[in-house]
Amino acid sequence: MTVLFDPATLRYDNRGLLPVVAQDAANAEVLMLAWMNAEAVARTLATGRVTYWSRSRAAFWVKGETSGHVQELVEMRIDCDRDCLLVRVRQTGPACHTGRQSCFYTAIRDGTEVEIVSSEV
Amino acid sequence: MTVLFDPATLRYDNRGLLPVVAQDAANAEVLMLAWMNAEAVARTLATGRVTYWSRSRAAFWVKGETSGHVQELVEMRIDCDRDCLLVRVRQTGPACHTGRQSCFYTAIRDGTEVEIVSSEV
Repeated sequence: MTVLFDPATLRYDNRGLLPVVAQDAANAEVLMLAWMNAEAVARTLATGRVTYWSRSRAAFWVKGETSGHVQELVEMRIDCDRDCLLVRVRQTGPACHTGRQSCFYTAIRDGTEVEIVSSEV
Repeated sequence: MTVLFDPATLRYDNRGLLPVVAQDAANAEVLMLAWMNAEAVARTLATGRVTYWSRSRAAFWVKGETSGHVQELVEMRIDCDRDCLLVRVRQTGPACHTGRQSCFYTAIRDGTEVEIVSSEV
C-alpha cells in the first residue's frame, strides 16, 4: 500500500520540530542528529538537499551551504510513531562542524570519555 | 585525553531529556530513536541494558523487559554538542514494537510512503 506523503502528517513537538538522524548511505555511519519542521521536511524532499531547522539561529539551515559539506538526500524514512526521521545521505566532506566525519566521535569506555579515531567507526 | 564521564555534563532539554539513536552494532542498521534522562544514562552504563525514559508512561523503560527484545549496550557515544547520544547495541529480536527489525520501515519514494522490506535496509 502506498500513501501520498504530506509533511503535516508527521508528529512535531511543541516547537513544531522533530529529530532527524542523518546516516551515511555509503557506509551506514550515523553522522549527526538535527531538527526539522514541516517546511524543512518539504524543502528537503523538494530539493534533495538536506535542510534542517537551526534552533540556535531560528532559521532554515541548508546543510553545507556555507561549508560546502552538503548532504544529498538518498532516502527519507519515517519511524513507526511518525515523530522522527532517518535521512540516508551522500555526505560531501565531514558532517561535523569540528571537521570530523561524524558528530559522535566521543565514546564512553570504562567510565571515561575517549575520542575515537575514524577507522574505528 | 580521557575525561571521567558524568551524565550530568550532558545537555538535556527542558524536560530533562535528550534523544538517543540506537544502532545495531552488528550491521549498522539504525533501529530506533528514544529518550533518556540523566538517570537512564547512568542506569544504561551501570547495567549494560539500554534503559530509556518513556515519555508516554513517564517511567524508566528497560528496553525488552516485557517483550524480551533487549538491547545490550556495546558502546555509548556522545555528539559534539553533548545533547544527544548514539548507543551501539546487540539487539535481541526486533527493535520495533510492530515486530519489524527497525522502527524506520517506511520510506518516502516518489512522493509516496512505501513500506520497505528488511532485505533493503
